Parts: sequence; structure tokens; C-alpha cells
Amino acid sequence: FQVNSFWIELGYFLTLSSLGFLALNASNPRTTTTFKPKYIDLFFTSVSASTVSSMSTVEMEVFSNTQLVLLTILMLVGGEVFTSMLGLHLIRAKIYLQKNGLITHRTVSDSSISSDPIPDSPTDHIELQMATRFRDKKSDTKPGETGGNLNHKSIKILAYFVACYLLVVHVAGSTLISIYFSLIPSARKVLKIKGLNMQTFSIFTTVSTFANCGFVPTNENMMAFKKNSGLLLILIPQILMGNTLYPVCLRSAIWAAEKMSRRAEFRYMLKNSRELGYGHLISGRHCVYLGITGVGFVIVQLVAFCLLEWKSEATGGLSAYQKLVGSLFQVVNSRHTGESVFDLSAISPAILVLFVAMMYLPPYTSFLPIDEAEEMKGEGEKWRKKKGLGEHIMFSQLTYLLIFVILICITERRKMKTDPLNFNVLSIVVEVVSAYGNVGFSVGYSCERQI
Amino acid sequence: FQVNSFWIELGYFLTLSSLGFLALNASNPRTTTTFKPKYIDLFFTSVSASTVSSMSTVEMEVFSNTQLVLLTILMLVGGEVFTSMLGLHLIRAKIYLQKNGLITHRTVSDSSISSDPIPDSPTDHIELQMATRFRDKKSDTKPGETGGNLNHKSIKILAYFVACYLLVVHVAGSTLISIYFSLIPSARKVLKIKGLNMQTFSIFTTVSTFANCGFVPTNENMMAFKKNSGLLLILIPQILMGNTLYPVCLRSAIWAAEKMSRRAEFRYMLKNSRELGYGHLISGRHCVYLGITGVGFVIVQLVAFCLLEWKSEATGGLSAYQKLVGSLFQVVNSRHTGESVFDLSAISPAILVLFVAMMYLPPYTSFLPIDEAEEMKGEGEKWRKKKGLGEHIMFSQLTYLLIFVILICITERRKMKTDPLNFNVLSIVVEVVSAYGNVGFSVGYSCERQI
Ligand SMILES: [K+]
Ligand SMILES: [K+]
Repeated sequence: FQVNSFWIELGYFLTLSSLGFLALNASNPRTTTTFKPKYIDLFFTSVSASTVSSMSTVEMEVFSNTQLVLLTILMLVGGEVFTSMLGLHLIRAKIYLQKNGLITHRTVSDSSISSDPIPDSPTDHIELQMATRFRDKKSDTKPGETGGNLNHKSIKILAYFVACYLLVVHVAGSTLISIYFSLIPSARKVLKIKGLNMQTFSIFTTVSTFANCGFVPTNENMMAFKKNSGLLLILIPQILMGNTLYPVCLRSAIWAAEKMSRRAEFRYMLKNSRELGYGHLISGRHCVYLGITGVGFVIVQLVAFCLLEWKSEATGGLSAYQKLVGSLFQVVNSRHTGESVFDLSAISPAILVLFVAMMYLPPYTSFLPIDEAEEMKGEGEKWRKKKGLGEHIMFSQLTYLLIFVILICITERRKMKTDPLNFNVLSIVVEVVSAYGNVGFSVGYSCERQI
Repeated sequence: FQVNSFWIELGYFLTLSSLGFLALNASNPRTTTTFKPKYIDLFFTSVSASTVSSMSTVEMEVFSNTQLVLLTILMLVGGEVFTSMLGLHLIRAKIYLQKNGLITHRTVSDSSISSDPIPDSPTDHIELQMATRFRDKKSDTKPGETGGNLNHKSIKILAYFVACYLLVVHVAGSTLISIYFSLIPSARKVLKIKGLNMQTFSIFTTVSTFANCGFVPTNENMMAFKKNSGLLLILIPQILMGNTLYPVCLRSAIWAAEKMSRRAEFRYMLKNSRELGYGHLISGRHCVYLGITGVGFVIVQLVAFCLLEWKSEATGGLSAYQKLVGSLFQVVNSRHTGESVFDLSAISPAILVLFVAMMYLPPYTSFLPIDEAEEMKGEGEKWRKKKGLGEHIMFSQLTYLLIFVILICITERRKMKTDPLNFNVLSIVVEVVSAYGNVGFSVGYSCERQI
């Protein structure tokens, strides 16, 4: 029985989305008397939450407290860190069964591929001298080799360690948000007006932010809180810890655990990152490059954003400190959470083009010294050959994006002619790349910009 | 004395541009009493002609007949086919001198690198599964090996063969244009009104078209001749023979010559295309792919253009036949000649995006079956390593283009706000990519589109 990771993944997300849809449909929305969302909208929201893309066709405030809890669960189990942890537990279970002679050797090496439920394609053909995810030779995880026992123990501990990481980040995050709302009456007032439960809001926002989904239970996303710099400062680390800097944080946590417990398994994890078959655990040097790149991108964006938008409409009415924190929040979100404090339609084209570039880059983009880049390239090559000819991607990602942009330009050509300020090529490119990168930014439609 | 190809090339074009500037400056423009172009404009035109980019800051009708002849010479000797022929003659001369013991062995292998005066960078990092130019192992051209004598004879014959090719195409092209103007009074009338000499116009246009420069002695480029379908049909093959399909035509011509003369040198050229060190002579199979790709791109563009622009303003007032020929001419020009029969500012965004993609692709883009693509990739890799670390391009071409677009968006941000229809991101992208690809398309400024 041969299944590859793609089908496992697809099945997982389809099941999740369907269950989510049934549950959402069974529970009543808040506006039950005035407005009932259509089935298709509910299904779309369910898919959107479980694939953490935060594309929405209904307003978020339609959902009742129960439905928000359901969406929270969907985002939690759909997030990349969670699914990668599931993969680890799957390997662990297989090793356990196989050790006890319950299944044969072959099955393990087949299904161990499913330990990496990350879509691979976005990491191909990326412009920039960079390496994305490390592809590890899965064959090394086969049992029966030297150090195999330590390897298995390490996988087991790592699986639980990632679970702890998730738990700690979520508990700490939602507690901090709750504390913030308890202390700041102005923020609490916003929730009261919108009729949102503080606990639900805290947990929902934490899960959504860490999973880089970008849903917020308010209609206007984070714009309602653009003056609450404290809240934004709590969310920024969550975004980074769940996405671009997750490998760095994970490795640091393992390092700290090793220093405290002095266990051989943690030492093994740090030294043999690749052999564990967990794509998010990467070597120390690569962590450094990844961290520098991630922080570098944020700084470049922040400088550009502040220089161009400091006195624009978008940031109007804020103090200097609020502007700075808001800008930082906005630029961190361009990869790939997609929460917004500013109205993107009021932002200058230069920044939008920069955001397009950032949304296009996969999360684990890192600049590398040349020799290592070549080394990793070689690895990528080897891995690509494994895929076989049938799966070879003939067109690159960029070509597909270009084709979509052209097709949308064709279908919307009448609107582009009659309303060129709202329907221009830049806004189409932003939508397409935002959808491609699972970001969820949208320029939106503004009646003020009509001719 | 070590010089690499980059400096030879730079020196060649600088000398050419300077000589061109001095000559242009010494001769009087047509509008000598009313308007004298500034030095900087003349220099810019000279550089533009010798690098065949057709970016112009003065109107073309300012130039007198003498100046047009000067520009023709600049375009002729600046064209890629001509410079590559010079490279061949250089190798030939070196081999001759070295055979007679006039220079040492070492010098030959050093300077043989200069035989390829084609800028390499645009062929790097291109999105699409493709191979661009063949990079040949230059070491094979060293004398003293087996078949070395035949190799040398072949290089010599090839050098003269390319010269013949150039001569035949130019003579045939300008004769055809002259005949066209003699036969069609309406076209002749346009020249008379503009005060252009027919002979000068024919030769200027042929040279400019074959070199893919895109200069035309009229202010409005080819728009003045959009109803002269015959003229456009004469120019289309010249564009292709001098650019995307040059390797295909060259190989076909050699094949025909071999069939007629049955000389061993031609057979050697066809069989050992790579060993001759002439980048434009490629293997038969690659020629087939290149031809299919080139024609395929034209067909795709033509279909899209006709579907979207058949009833638009841009093609208004033309008969169906004139529209078809005009569209064909326009889409063939998007790689990389840049002559225009239609007003690009009236063309729909979908087509402009497609043109951007076409302008971005280097001339010798070709889709390849996977195994050969990998083979060629390997070759490219080897060649890149030869370049050494210092010359390694850290950012890809696309990143540079993106940076330029963002910078222009920043510097023009005020105009983009007050006049968003003329200064939008798409028009900036078109200008940047057009300049990068040496095309010379420009959306231009249209007062009708102001708000
Ligand atoms: K998202
Ligand atoms: K050109």
C-alpha cells in the first residue's frame, strides 16, 4: 500500500475542512436572525482556517463564540508547526510498532516520507541566492544502523519537546493578551462594543497569530487595535516564533534544555539535526543565516515603510511611538501572517511592491555564503531527481503567477478600463501573490479612489 | 597582459560611442537654425545606437541625412552578430600569428576568451526550464590537437561565412525595402513629407532592424507605416534572422552550403558546433528547440494580442489584414527590437504584462526536454565556477529589477499620487524591463489619461 506525502496531506486537510464545515454549520452564527452565511462561505472559511490562509468571504463578527472556538481548533491543528509535530509522532509510533515486530521494515521506510507534511513546491526555483528548507536523506532514519537507538529516543523526545513548545507559546501568549486586556480599559472597550468574549479573543488571536493564519475575530482585522501598541508588541514575537524564526527558536530551546538537563538525546539532536528527519530542525550555522535574513528583511521593510509612510494617510492620527510599533507589526506580517493595522489601499506603491516580493519568498529564505549555497543546491538537486520525471515542474512558480495575473487582467479588463484606480495591475499582483504565499493581504476596494 | 572579455567589450563600446558622438557633433542636424540637440543628448543617442538599445531623448527627425548614415554605421558595428563575427576574426588572426610563431601559445588561450563578446549575465538565473546560450569549453580550440588543422580552417571559413550572411541579409533587406517604396506611392509620400532620403531610410531601417536596435528615422517609429503591411512583412524576417532565430538561420545556411559545396569544413562545423568557440553556432537539436520556442512565443503572443486588441482603440482604423500583420509585427518586436506600430499606452494591461515577460527573457530562451536541460545546467555550473568568487552574482537579475522598480516608485511617488493613470507601477515595470532587455518599448505619457 503506497501513499505519498501529498495524498496524506491532502486527505488530512480535506477531512479537517469537512469536519470544520459540518461543525460550523451545526452551530448558530451570532446574527442568526438577520443574516445566515451561505454553505459555500462557511466551507470556504473552514478551508481557509485549516490551511491557515486567512482568505475570508464573510465578516468575522458574524461568527458566534462557539464558532470562534471551532475556528481556533481548526487553525491550531492546521498550523505548520502542529502538523510537523504530528509527522514526528507518526514516525515515533511506526518505530515503536516496528521494534515490537508488529509491522515489517518496508512499511516504515515508505511512510517515513509522510513525516514531512510541508508542501515542497514553493521552495523550488526561487529567485535569490538562497537555500530554503533542508531536505534530509530520509534513509538515515532507518533503524538498525549505528546510533539507531539514540536516534529513536531523540525522535521520541523531540516529538514531545515540540508539543511542549507549542503548549508553552500558546499558554504564555494568550495569558499575556488576557493580562493586557485586563490592564487597558480602552482595548477592553473595543471587545465590549463588538460583543467578544475576552478569553475567546485571546486564545483565538494567539492560535491564529502563531499558526500565521491571520484571522482576527474583528471585521477590520487588527486595525481596531492600531493604537494598542502593547498588544501589537505581544503579537510580534508570536508571529516570528511560529514562522520565519521557528527553527531558530526551536534550536535555542533545545540548546537551553541540553544545558539544563545534560541529556545525550538533546546533544544528539543538536549535532545530528538532519538525521532526525524533522525539516524544521536545522544546523546551527543555517539557523544563524536564517535568523540574520529574517531580521534583515524586517529591518529593510521597516526602514522603507517608516521613510515613506510616516506622514501618509495610512498612519494618520497616531503618535510617533504608535506609528513605529504599527509599522513594525505591519512589516512583520508581510511574511506570512497577513494581519493588518494599516489600510493597504492607502499605502504607496513602492511599499506594495516590496510587500509583493516579501510575500513571494518562502518562510525559510536565507542568504548563504557561496560555497554552502552550492552545497545545498547540490542537495536540492539530488532530492529533485528522486521525485521522478512525472512530477517534474515544467514551469516555475513565477511563470504560473504570471499566467494567473494575465488571466485576471483578461477577465477583469472591463473593470480595469472603467475603474483603473481600483483595478490596476499592482492590486491584482498583490492579490495573486498574497494568495500564493498564503498571506492574506488584500488591497481592497475603495470608493474614494473611483474616478 | 591579462584582459578579460568584459573589459574588451566595454572598451569597444566606449570607443564606438565616443567616435559616434564626435562624428554626430561635427555634422549638422537638419534643424540647425531652430534647434540644436545638446551634447548629452547626442552622446546618449550615440551610446544607444552602438549598444542597439534604441532609447532616445531627441526626436529622430532632428538628424540630417549625414547623421543618419553615421547612426547606421554605429548600429551596424554595434550589433551582436557583427561583434560576434569580429570575435571570430580575432581568433582566426591569433591562430594565424601563432602558427607562424609570431606569438606564444599562452597568449592565444588567454585572448580566445574575447571571442565571445556577449554579455553573460542576462542568461543567469532565468525563470523557466531552459538553457540559454551554449557555453563551450574554450580549451578545445587550442591548436596542436587532433583535427586541430580542420578546426582552424573551419574557424576561418566560418568567420567569412558570417560576414557573407551579414552582407546578404543587409543587401537583400534594403533592396526589398527600396523596391517596396518604389512600388507603393502612399509609403513614398510619407518619406517625402518627412524629407527623408529613400536609400538612407532603407539602409538605416534594415541595419536597425537586423541589429534589433529598433531606431527608425521617423518620430513616431513604425506607426507612420502601420497601414503598409508589405513593409512590415519585409521587416519581420529581418528581426528574427538577426535575433531569436539567428542560430537556426546560420545553421540552415551552413547546411545548405555543405549540400552545395560538399566541403569538409562545413561538415566539421555542423558536427562539432561547440568546438569552434562561436556561441551562436549550436547543435542541430538545440536549434530545433530554439526554433520551436521562438515561434511558439510569437504564436502565443499573437493569439492573445488579436483576441484582446482586435476591437480596441490601438488597432482602430485598420482592415482585418492590416490588423493581423500589425499585430504580428508588434509581438515579434517584443523580443527585443522594440519597434512599434501601435500606441502601447492604449494597449490592455494583460498584453503589457505578457510583453514584460517576453522582454525579460533573453533571446536564446528555449524549452528543453528534462534530461538535456540538466546536462546543460551542469555545463553552466562548470562555467560559472570558472568565473571565480569575486564575480559571483549575489542577487539575481530579478532582484535588481525589483530594486529599480521600488526606487523609481519612491522617486516618482508624488507623480504617482497626482497622476496615477500615467504613473502606475505597470508602466514603471515596462520601462525598467524594457531598458534591462534592451528592447526600447515605452508606454509613454498621454494627456488624455490624466484625471
Ligand atoms: K496567512
Ligand atoms: K532594441
